[in-house]
Amino acid sequence: MSTSDHPSQALATFAAELSFERIPDAVMRRAEDLMLDWLGSVLAARSARPVRSIQRFAEMMGPAEGPSEVLISRRTTSPLFAALVNAAASHYVEQDDVHNGSVFHPAAVVFAPALAVAQAVGASGKQLLTAVVAGYEVGIRVGEFLGRSHYRTFHTTSTAGTLAAAAAVGRLLDLTPAQMPHAFGSAGTQSAGVWEFLRDAADSKQLHCAHASAAGLMSAYLAQDGFTGAARVLEGAQGLGVGMSSDADPAKLADGLGTRWTLAETSFKFHASCRHTHPAADALLQVMQQNRLKAGDIARVVTHVHQGAIDVLGRVVVPATVHQAKFSMGTVLGLIAVHGRAGLTEFDRDFLAPEVAAFRDKVMMELDGDVDAAYPARWIGKVSVTTTDGRTLTGRVDEPKGDPGNTLSRAEIEDKMQRLTQYGGSATAEEAKAACARIWSLAGEARVGRLLG
Amino acid sequence: MSTSDHPSQALATFAAELSFERIPDAVMRRAEDLMLDWLGSVLAARSARPVRSIQRFAEMMGPAEGPSEVLISRRTTSPLFAALVNAAASHYVEQDDVHNGSVFHPAAVVFAPALAVAQAVGASGKQLLTAVVAGYEVGIRVGEFLGRSHYRTFHTTSTAGTLAAAAAVGRLLDLTPAQMPHAFGSAGTQSAGVWEFLRDAADSKQLHCAHASAAGLMSAYLAQDGFTGAARVLEGAQGLGVGMSSDADPAKLADGLGTRWTLAETSFKFHASCRHTHPAADALLQVMQQNRLKAGDIARVVTHVHQGAIDVLGRVVVPATVHQAKFSMGTVLGLIAVHGRAGLTEFDRDFLAPEVAAFRDKVMMELDGDVDAAYPARWIGKVSVTTTDGRTLTGRVDEPKGDPGNTLSRAEIEDKMQRLTQYGGSATAEEAKAACARIWSLAGEARVGRLLG
Repeated sequence: MSTSDHPSQALATFAAELSFERIPDAVMRRAEDLMLDWLGSVLAARSARPVRSIQRFAEMMGPAEGPSEVLISRRTTSPLFAALVNAAASHYVEQDDVHNGSVFHPAAVVFAPALAVAQAVGASGKQLLTAVVAGYEVGIRVGEFLGRSHYRTFHTTSTAGTLAAAAAVGRLLDLTPAQMPHAFGSAGTQSAGVWEFLRDAADSKQLHCAHASAAGLMSAYLAQDGFTGAARVLEGAQGLGVGMSSDADPAKLADGLGTRWTLAETSFKFHASCRHTHPAADALLQVMQQNRLKAGDIARVVTHVHQGAIDVLGRVVVPATVHQAKFSMGTVLGLIAVHGRAGLTEFDRDFLAPEVAAFRDKVMMELDGDVDAAYPARWIGKVSVTTTDGRTLTGRVDEPKGDPGNTLSRAEIEDKMQRLTQYGGSATAEEAKAACARIWSLAGEARVGRLLG
Repeated sequence: MSTSDHPSQALATFAAELSFERIPDAVMRRAEDLMLDWLGSVLAARSARPVRSIQRFAEMMGPAEGPSEVLISRRTTSPLFAALVNAAASHYVEQDDVHNGSVFHPAAVVFAPALAVAQAVGASGKQLLTAVVAGYEVGIRVGEFLGRSHYRTFHTTSTAGTLAAAAAVGRLLDLTPAQMPHAFGSAGTQSAGVWEFLRDAADSKQLHCAHASAAGLMSAYLAQDGFTGAARVLEGAQGLGVGMSSDADPAKLADGLGTRWTLAETSFKFHASCRHTHPAADALLQVMQQNRLKAGDIARVVTHVHQGAIDVLGRVVVPATVHQAKFSMGTVLGLIAVHGRAGLTEFDRDFLAPEVAAFRDKVMMELDGDVDAAYPARWIGKVSVTTTDGRTLTGRVDEPKGDPGNTLSRAEIEDKMQRLTQYGGSATAEEAKAACARIWSLAGEARVGRLLG
């Protein structure tokens, strides 16, 4: 049977047979980067109300101790519940990674189940990282397979997430190429998650990540035990493509397996604001750094943007809440100008601070033909800055900070992780530093231990 | 806000406010009947391979003891895992109830979570039965809302099942009318389950029941803790109706609340065969009983059937497996003629027995205009029997045994339950008898105890 006859089998075989040696070094290093970035996101959400609810449910229903680490509580439990709680925390502060093509947040549904199971089965660091790559490569391709029509109603991180989790856990459990499709079948038939919660700003995003991680984990364990699933749960006549998409493309499932590493296409989030503000924020930073400007030196900023930015950001002028502030171009640039960064802490503390508010009112958005034509393939940042002493300076960034072509350095990732950890009050700076060191040396560990404490 | 503006809120309010006193006696008695019928189905599946897999997963991930009873293992654990395992067992032998209009098997996804949580919270028998009615009324209406187009790709028992489970558990947790919609929102955004597994005869049906029960249970607990969900996860612009159906009808959600009791519309399964064989089996039994015939007295049977029966059953002439035998009209009638019943035990033991095989070859199917015209509103059974002494006798049954107008007596339900329990080797006849007595007196119990042992 060829790949084109049964692409999900090709994908399952790839995940089952993936070995550390086959993965390019640069991809493996990026996997470590993403793991540290994920850890920061989890630790930032320690006190978040919806995450705490899922934590309490896990404590009520699950064992009080076990082999796997619940990062936000420092307790242990069985892999299922560690995956559930850590996943619920992964996406809360919305600082985790994103794969643009699949509109999928892989870290949120891959690292939590993979870490929990690695700790339970005594996996090595190489085995964990290999499993993570398997999860990314599967989840992103499933997201691309489900397509844009799917994303209109379904939260792809949630739906494709069950398969991403199943692939990562399945790799750790050493599922064979014959067993892995059963894990996919069970995971796919638990794929769920719709966008309707956005209307009410309800807590479902946290549930989606938790559900996908737990359901995928369960599917892999069941497959190991001989429990069978549909061989074509994705591309079959009564599968997810037919049921939940109108433009599903089975060819995406096996696209470039072993040569195209989609994990390395994933973007980091650098600023804590809406992604549409990031290009302009980067361009403003560039102008200010190159010209050694301070906020007080600036009289006016015009951001030259794509239409989508105006559509999404245009409505918020004076933000009433922190959440709205993240969609206010003026506020974001104000935080950048005053503090040099627009992170979670700066938003919480200063989104209405007088100096930030004063800068906010100096910012305008203008539609730019070139920037708009390049979108969405490229998110170009372009600003014109007028200084108080009458100069006009321009800045331009062709890839926003965090995209694959302008990725974060390890120092920047550590710095972001430290800030997220402090934000959540989840660990001391020393503990966070030790966790960083542990992840940078993970590939040499014979056995994945606890990340904290 | 009126019911028609927000029918899922009306349904949630109904479920939250449902009290024992508002439920007609006949409905409550039927709920007890259905509970005993469900218990038999669970106990029949004790040794089933896929059920054992889910049991092992629960034992690996869940606590080794707790307030809730795992019926097939006689162990206890937390409500989540008791619900998971008991639900996985509910549908395995396919002898559980069905609601025709919604094509939904309510018992499989209502009783398991309701019993587990009732045992955990110390609910009374009345509270448990009230919660069960809430689960049926919600699940069936959600199934009707999702419609026929949904059923083409999705297994409604699985998808609507999350809401049925959430409603039952939510009632036991005393969710308010303001909290119940959050349980629905979280349950709906975990709704999953496609038919693709049928192509491979994979184990997903057991996973579907387990998943729906566990996800619904979790949703209700989360709602009790303040975790929010979409207010219109069913009928909203990015809800299940839009995402998973093309003929979703929101009016069905609030249809006849408080006056129409859909629980009482549910059918019991009497024979262990494909439902399309049941009308003819009943008509043959009628002829044989009325005329005191034995199998050897019969030379020929013509079954006058609807086209659907020919489409589904026509292909199997000599069955190769027990499963195929359940789709062989001749085999079913052969078991009825020889043993007076076509239960799980008779199928396993005698589907190829010489006397049964000999009878099988005397059976023909013929399309009947009247029977076909009445279908699917009525499933009429009509047979012409030619005796060895040359008589032609006719039988006709207008509702197959088990349908609401021809329901099982308590003696028949107990008998079916005893047979299912023996089939599974799950309990002694005395234990099964004691469990029957416990269920018949459940409404008087101050606290729901263990059903077995």
